[in-house]
Amino acid sequence: MTPAEKNYKIILSYDGTRYYGFEHQPDKDTIQGRLENVLGRMTGQETVEVIGAGRTDAGVHAKGMVVSVRLALPMTPEEIRDTMNRYLPDDISCEEVREAGDRFHARYNATGKTYRYSCYIGKTKEVFRRKYCLPLDFRPDITAMQEAAQILTGKHDFKSFCGNPRMKKSTIRVVDEIRIEEKKSYLYFTIHGTGFLQHMVRIMVGTLLLVGEGRLSPEEVEQILLAEDRSKAGPTAPAKGLCLEKVDYD
Amino acid sequence: MTPAEKNYKIILSYDGTRYYGFEHQPDKDTIQGRLENVLGRMTGQETVEVIGAGRTDAGVHAKGMVVSVRLALPMTPEEIRDTMNRYLPDDISCEEVREAGDRFHARYNATGKTYRYSCYIGKTKEVFRRKYCLPLDFRPDITAMQEAAQILTGKHDFKSFCGNPRMKKSTIRVVDEIRIEEKKSYLYFTIHGTGFLQHMVRIMVGTLLLVGEGRLSPEEVEQILLAEDRSKAGPTAPAKGLCLEKVDYD
Repeated sequence: MTPAEKNYKIILSYDGTRYYGFEHQPDKDTIQGRLENVLGRMTGQETVEVIGAGRTDAGVHAKGMVVSVRLALPMTPEEIRDTMNRYLPDDISCEEVREAGDRFHARYNATGKTYRYSCYIGKTKEVFRRKYCLPLDFRPDITAMQEAAQILTGKHDFKSFCGNPRMKKSTIRVVDEIRIEEKKSYLYFTIHGTGFLQHMVRIMVGTLLLVGEGRLSPEEVEQILLAEDRSKAGPTAPAKGLCLEKVDYD
Repeated sequence: MTPAEKNYKIILSYDGTRYYGFEHQPDKDTIQGRLENVLGRMTGQETVEVIGAGRTDAGVHAKGMVVSVRLALPMTPEEIRDTMNRYLPDDISCEEVREAGDRFHARYNATGKTYRYSCYIGKTKEVFRRKYCLPLDFRPDITAMQEAAQILTGKHDFKSFCGNPRMKKSTIRVVDEIRIEEKKSYLYFTIHGTGFLQHMVRIMVGTLLLVGEGRLSPEEVEQILLAEDRSKAGPTAPAKGLCLEKVDYD
């Protein structure tokens, strides 16, 4: 007897270093492709459609990516988790599987996301976390960055911070919090918002780092925001420092 | 004018994953080989002899390896450190360079070493530290392991824990402390001693894990120690969990 199809909410963590991002692409190694392949083998279903809470770019990591997926499997959620972990490569981990209501949709129901960007600011080199943080060759001015971050916080048109030049839809987003902290030899940007444009977090961090380096003033960041022009903002910070920490649902 | 040759004490950290251990071997990528190459380029000296506090095996990591080396360089210790970090690959870091007395010898003067072995005991998979810890598929009995560790502590003939079957010299060593702790989803073995035989820490950990799994009793560990026979002890735990944390000098 075929088990009934159920809708599941799955939490994943992954080291994005060697993947072409979350989203499925033909002939590319992606997180979604790996998941659909493993779940397809587990269920025998011809097509398994994994819906991600969002896309992470090539090289970006996740500790709390959420996906929803319909599966017909004669297993408990714990058994699904353990079987996934056996078949998934060692840089993708299934942290939790839970049965979700039939209408749960990982993307449409997401109400917020937390990203963290990590930099290394020690005097030497970081060996063990080198794939998960950006080394800086200057001592950033944290107070100046915090002042600039205050300007970016709130509901704004983030067009200057959008990496997609052909973006047709609204570029207005709400960023609730940008927390900038120094801990030991690391600098962390923790950013929470209801939704983000393509490369938005990385362009914000790239711009804030110019402030930290003294190459931009907080006032100039305000002008960049108002310009609604990507070319005015700073560079897109490298993918490896970024991690999707958490996705919120009501 | 050629600067005078000075003796230096250098502290290194490295991710040993892709190296054939610390010690120089022809046609193999080793930590010592990398160091001698970079220091040779920096000094222009035909041969640079780097003396390590000890050898780490292929795949073993270090946070506090110490080496001594004679260099004739017109640089401050900080400049030597920064130049080394620029030329060394991103999985080897020079943490500190200090001028040492002329008679300082990283191996002969070492009075003790601290190693740490890390295991992951969570329910899922560890993605970000996967190259630095051994995942266990059972919940170890920590009290039993601590009891067995107590038996191994002290001055003993560790022949049963020596990976070199052709060892001619004394296999008596002093192990001061074996601390076993669970922290979040990790299990750590922190081992301090005045000196260690080849693979000794890994064979001790491999044996203690058999105790933690309930396959050996603490009493049997005593018999293993007294047997002075490598074949009686447990397996050599995988290299990737081991890290040389610190080397002591008077």
